[in-house]
Amino acid sequence: MSEKVAIFAEGLFETPNGKTGHGVVRYAAREVVAVVDSTHAGSTAEQVVPYCGRPVPIVATLREAADLGATVLLIGVAPLGGALTPEWRLALEEAMALGLDVEAGLHTVLGDDADLVALAERHGVALRDLRTSPPGLSVPQGPRARPAGLRVVHSVGSDCAIGKMSVTLELDKTARARGERSAFVATGQTGIAITGWGIAVDHVISDFIAGAAERLVLEGAERGNDLLFVEGQGALHHPAYSGVTLGLLHGSAPDVLVLAHRAGTTVNSDYTDTPLLPLPALVAAYEAVVAPVKPAKVAAIALNTAGLTDDEARAAISEAERETGLPADDVVRFGAGKLLDAVLAALPATSGVS
Amino acid sequence: MSEKVAIFAEGLFETPNGKTGHGVVRYAAREVVAVVDSTHAGSTAEQVVPYCGRPVPIVATLREAADLGATVLLIGVAPLGGALTPEWRLALEEAMALGLDVEAGLHTVLGDDADLVALAERHGVALRDLRTSPPGLSVPQGPRARPAGLRVVHSVGSDCAIGKMSVTLELDKTARARGERSAFVATGQTGIAITGWGIAVDHVISDFIAGAAERLVLEGAERGNDLLFVEGQGALHHPAYSGVTLGLLHGSAPDVLVLAHRAGTTVNSDYTDTPLLPLPALVAAYEAVVAPVKPAKVAAIALNTAGLTDDEARAAISEAERETGLPADDVVRFGAGKLLDAVLAALPATSGVS
Repeated sequence: MSEKVAIFAEGLFETPNGKTGHGVVRYAAREVVAVVDSTHAGSTAEQVVPYCGRPVPIVATLREAADLGATVLLIGVAPLGGALTPEWRLALEEAMALGLDVEAGLHTVLGDDADLVALAERHGVALRDLRTSPPGLSVPQGPRARPAGLRVVHSVGSDCAIGKMSVTLELDKTARARGERSAFVATGQTGIAITGWGIAVDHVISDFIAGAAERLVLEGAERGNDLLFVEGQGALHHPAYSGVTLGLLHGSAPDVLVLAHRAGTTVNSDYTDTPLLPLPALVAAYEAVVAPVKPAKVAAIALNTAGLTDDEARAAISEAERETGLPADDVVRFGAGKLLDAVLAALPATSGVS
Repeated sequence: MSEKVAIFAEGLFETPNGKTGHGVVRYAAREVVAVVDSTHAGSTAEQVVPYCGRPVPIVATLREAADLGATVLLIGVAPLGGALTPEWRLALEEAMALGLDVEAGLHTVLGDDADLVALAERHGVALRDLRTSPPGLSVPQGPRARPAGLRVVHSVGSDCAIGKMSVTLELDKTARARGERSAFVATGQTGIAITGWGIAVDHVISDFIAGAAERLVLEGAERGNDLLFVEGQGALHHPAYSGVTLGLLHGSAPDVLVLAHRAGTTVNSDYTDTPLLPLPALVAAYEAVVAPVKPAKVAAIALNTAGLTDDEARAAISEAERETGLPADDVVRFGAGKLLDAVLAALPATSGVS
């Protein structure tokens, strides 16, 4: 029986915290049969969040999701802090009673919870922690450890939850459509739920962020690719997550950066006291902080124009180009071709993975 | 029976990897009765590493350390990556057989090792993991969560193992001697072994580095202090540890920075392909990266002049002052008074912790 996914997002599917669910609906290879959020029952995922792009039904209860054939419940929300709340625990228990496997990318490790483990055994279902770190992580060897000819592109951003993962997935998809031996490299729980491999670098021991990032790059090459699009996390000036951002940046040691930004935003979405730098200053900040480890330039601006009209989006894109002198586009709205052209032009020529 | 410490540093006491042992010999409130390193047996810690400043005997074997009255063996080396090696495991087993408690700040958690736990039970000794994270960590609330009047000073640096902890300890000691309600805030295993509290921020889940740093600052205030010297970790451009550095920097949200540097070094000590920025560029880089979260200026340069003559040290200090336009000094060699003056002058006036 092939897996069929229901996404649990009760009360939160429409919010930025529902981004795990949005990404999985839009990109997962596995079939998604339902979203559980009683506040939007009767609509489709696409109607509530146009980005989702698929008419997956939203239902009010786990039983309805099971009736639609779900075999696994994915916790589809990533709250600030990532802990398991009491309400969600009840939902997990109900899902297991209905015979569903449970998959989560929380910092709370399901497999460490004796009660949940016992319940899973009783109901004969599996618990999968997407964020669990692999064994044997350590510090990186440094950029020179990479195979010759490997090209690494990394998506950085001005904030969390603005579409870095989508930009990375769309660039990879377009590159593969053009015949590149390209891969998306997942660094967070949503990306792992979508692709089936990766490391949630925000959950590793902090001394090993860069080492985990390097390991992902090496694994991407071992899988036969010579062009990697490494998903970014957080933001360089994010009060909570900047450490993850910088460790991932130095550890993945990209050749080229793509800078993601949500059009019109000027303050951090979680810490509204914290301003976002203007785009040109942000380009300069990322290039400056990466340079001593391995120089890389920002090749393009990936603008998230969700909520704007097409005309407004085009105006915002033109303004970003004028400000930065770099190509800009919204890859979800208009496709990734233009930004991929800019990225490939900025990359060194490859001689293939040796 | 009060605790008496033996420091295990076999073959490594003289190297930078022995820094945990050096710091504990120099600063710990607990009595240190021996260093175990057969390659220097017969000398004192101070003779091999002048920084240690105390004539603790170096012995060849764990039995000699036990005969000198040791009640606890501290693993006094912090290798790159922080894993427990097979040789050290044998030493731990021997120490436990001799009746010593074992204390370590490795990433390898002693208490997770069933064999070591069983052996500790058999011999009636304790295993203490200095790097274990406290429960309940999460993301920070942000700088505005701090009590009014609290002043936070943070030591950043150009590299690892250059003396950031010593600078922080000496500034705190001098401030307390002047009557300040000051505390050293330990963020690594050596600092915790010295002071008995703190969090090893390099061992927490990477999403929570900044949250752990903020918790330490709040705890420092709760302990009745209104001036905190927060130990720095790593370096902003360190290929392995930059994530820890930046998360700690944004999470501790200092009012003033002190920049530590080893005189004459121009490349990263672990990654010799990675250049160190010149001091003025490094000052600018730290000030730029911290500014969006909470602006802070570098008030002074703490130069490590170990290995130079006093005249050479004075010349290096003058050169650093000329380059940066900031007061510089070697606080271990010449005392912390001058740099403390610069730090206090740069701090906002305090109205005391409310």
